[in-house]
Amino acid sequence: MPRTKTVKKTTSSKSAGRAAQSLPASSPVKVALLGFGTVGSSVAKVLATMKYSGLELTHIYNRDVERKRASTAAKVVPPTVQWTENIQDVLRSDVDIVVELMGGLDPAEGWLRKVLSSGKSVVTANKQLIAYRGAKLARVARQNHAQLLYGAAVAGGVPVIPGTQQGLGGDRITRLSGIVNGTCNYILSRMESGADYAEALADAQKLGYAEANPSSDVDGYDARAKLVILSRIALHAEIDPDEVSTQSISSISAIDFAYARELNCTIRQISRAQVEGSTVRARVAPMLVPKTSPMAWSHGTQNMVVTSGEFGGDVVFSGHGAGGHPTAVAVVSDILAVAQRCHAVELPVRRRTVTSEVVAPHYLRFVVHDQPGIIMGIAGALARVGINIDSILQHAGHPKNRLPFVVTVEPCLNTTLEKALRAIAKMDFILEKPVSLQILAPDEKDE
Amino acid sequence: MPRTKTVKKTTSSKSAGRAAQSLPASSPVKVALLGFGTVGSSVAKVLATMKYSGLELTHIYNRDVERKRASTAAKVVPPTVQWTENIQDVLRSDVDIVVELMGGLDPAEGWLRKVLSSGKSVVTANKQLIAYRGAKLARVARQNHAQLLYGAAVAGGVPVIPGTQQGLGGDRITRLSGIVNGTCNYILSRMESGADYAEALADAQKLGYAEANPSSDVDGYDARAKLVILSRIALHAEIDPDEVSTQSISSISAIDFAYARELNCTIRQISRAQVEGSTVRARVAPMLVPKTSPMAWSHGTQNMVVTSGEFGGDVVFSGHGAGGHPTAVAVVSDILAVAQRCHAVELPVRRRTVTSEVVAPHYLRFVVHDQPGIIMGIAGALARVGINIDSILQHAGHPKNRLPFVVTVEPCLNTTLEKALRAIAKMDFILEKPVSLQILAPDEKDE
Repeated sequence: MPRTKTVKKTTSSKSAGRAAQSLPASSPVKVALLGFGTVGSSVAKVLATMKYSGLELTHIYNRDVERKRASTAAKVVPPTVQWTENIQDVLRSDVDIVVELMGGLDPAEGWLRKVLSSGKSVVTANKQLIAYRGAKLARVARQNHAQLLYGAAVAGGVPVIPGTQQGLGGDRITRLSGIVNGTCNYILSRMESGADYAEALADAQKLGYAEANPSSDVDGYDARAKLVILSRIALHAEIDPDEVSTQSISSISAIDFAYARELNCTIRQISRAQVEGSTVRARVAPMLVPKTSPMAWSHGTQNMVVTSGEFGGDVVFSGHGAGGHPTAVAVVSDILAVAQRCHAVELPVRRRTVTSEVVAPHYLRFVVHDQPGIIMGIAGALARVGINIDSILQHAGHPKNRLPFVVTVEPCLNTTLEKALRAIAKMDFILEKPVSLQILAPDEKDE
Repeated sequence: MPRTKTVKKTTSSKSAGRAAQSLPASSPVKVALLGFGTVGSSVAKVLATMKYSGLELTHIYNRDVERKRASTAAKVVPPTVQWTENIQDVLRSDVDIVVELMGGLDPAEGWLRKVLSSGKSVVTANKQLIAYRGAKLARVARQNHAQLLYGAAVAGGVPVIPGTQQGLGGDRITRLSGIVNGTCNYILSRMESGADYAEALADAQKLGYAEANPSSDVDGYDARAKLVILSRIALHAEIDPDEVSTQSISSISAIDFAYARELNCTIRQISRAQVEGSTVRARVAPMLVPKTSPMAWSHGTQNMVVTSGEFGGDVVFSGHGAGGHPTAVAVVSDILAVAQRCHAVELPVRRRTVTSEVVAPHYLRFVVHDQPGIIMGIAGALARVGINIDSILQHAGHPKNRLPFVVTVEPCLNTTLEKALRAIAKMDFILEKPVSLQILAPDEKDE
């Protein structure tokens, strides 16, 4: 029982202090990697470079494993490692820690359940699995005195999860806002610099930031999984990913950045969750972000998370949210934590219902066929649901038969606004589905 | 032996998982506060508000304790707490955790040594003590199976220490740069907005950010202590605070901000440490920071730390670095970690020598009595030591008999530059000691 051995090492009264420094070389903590792709090979590279005493990479599982074994990335892997495409070789082994880097719910869930049930600990970067099944897997881990760590599942190399768990347990965090999808941030930053959506997406695909089917990123499902995980860690709220509404960035066009600039804003895919009583107000959507907000600092594939606490105020974490090496940093940090038997501060987590309703100012962009009565039509529809217009913006130089036209409205309930937009969408001068974006307040306070 | 009891709670095989959730109310972890000033009363407030199960505030020590006990801040303190001005009441008690918020080396060091020797754990916000004596106290803690946590000693409510320990152990951090003194950042931000030094300092004193004698803040000693602590945590380098050179911000004047703006920079007190072999390049000084650098984002009393890792790149932590409530968040987070027996990932720390030598571009500001030959004199002194001038800046509108005059130089060794500046300072047209500020590179990479 290797796990029991590990427990003894760090808690026997004689060696408690020393054990934490470096584990005795005579009984190394054994690590198996499931998946030898970009992150897996980076983890092997970091372990080979850092040479932590008392840690030993013993197994690498991958489908078509011989191809992986022959790759250049495999050169850093110690010759003693067992390469396998049979998961049973790992499940039946005496490894202490299984590092899962395959992604997806199946077969990862079943395998990790078996791993945890046998008392082995798990380190994973699998955000969908942790968002949907994290609470259940954590229960299995607890029942079997194993650890389940997933610092790499959110914001890659940015230590939001450990920083929040260990450093903000003394606060009551009421809101978190994040830029947690590097692909969207890359696309939107490129558009901020003048590219159009199709061009920016194509470049992201060429650079390996976006998949051939980019839906998971641009439509917000990737960010949503991360928001759900962060809500658990920071808000101590367990929420159902499927209840969190998402809005795609694919409807944003270059013209929106031009108008956003005029409002001293930029546009970012923002993931937000806010506790209100037993409800969590949560959504993932492209939003107008004031240039003075920390959220506007984040460029390219960078990630950023801002937690807002009752006592400590806003705390910002930012850095590289994706890529093999940054993600490997999070994975290896978690391996060290398991190996040194460092468990995280845990506070009670409660199941919460989700609402996507929000009262906020909004940016509305219409594409119209210019004709008399447009302002009256739009203003009328908004007035009928009690929404006040804040400003009307219209740049010169667009064709009359395809005119972008922007209205900003004072804080209103988004569901009420959507009702008005449905009415407006039916008006005969409207050529495209109107785009509606929440505008973040400069101090992010008055939502 | 209350500590042994705590060990059992989190490691006995039956209750390991549950214990981490909330400690059993039947055997609360007892907490004593040393110091009931701004931070101490905020800690009491947070504990009273959050009502963590299994934690009990049992003692408050302060000189002239009756005055504290009668204060409004004391109203949140449970009636069961023993208020005392006799430290023996705490030392001889059965408390599990002593929270030290008095500051200074003496008597804190002796008392905490006794606390740790008796197997009680310590949570402290005392940066000078931890910078100068942290390694020794940690040894005493280890020998007695106690914990010593000091997340509040650096950057208040910003979880740089736990985030780095738990989340970046998998990286090799080679450099850290920080804005870790809120008073200096407040003064310099005010000057950026047009205030002069004396006015900004007076305001900082009025607001309680700066002491009557502001030397510890403005001359860099406070930041230096924090830099030494961060070097231990992030660079795994133990360095002597007295070996780290400091440069005061008191020589910065409004005119420097005007010229900095022209160079698309601002001025911040920066604390930097960089590992090079067995040496750490470390200093605390006001520096020119490009407006595009994360360091320029930090305004007012905000703190910011950027770690640069070989694998994960730059990670930014920022937030409120001072004040009762944010500091209390760090203190209470550490209390929870001790109570739940969460120890930090520890990696070997090595004693390192310090150098303050740096090769970097510099900003030089002279105040001269205008006369022929000034540029020749200054350029000649720089040329004699092999330093190239990058630009010469001179704004109109200053009196000829007291003319500020700025030169920027290409990357050069600071000690060589100082030699040239000593020669220049003796020239008859020089009216004030020249000001020399390192210029940070936009990407912070080419130092």
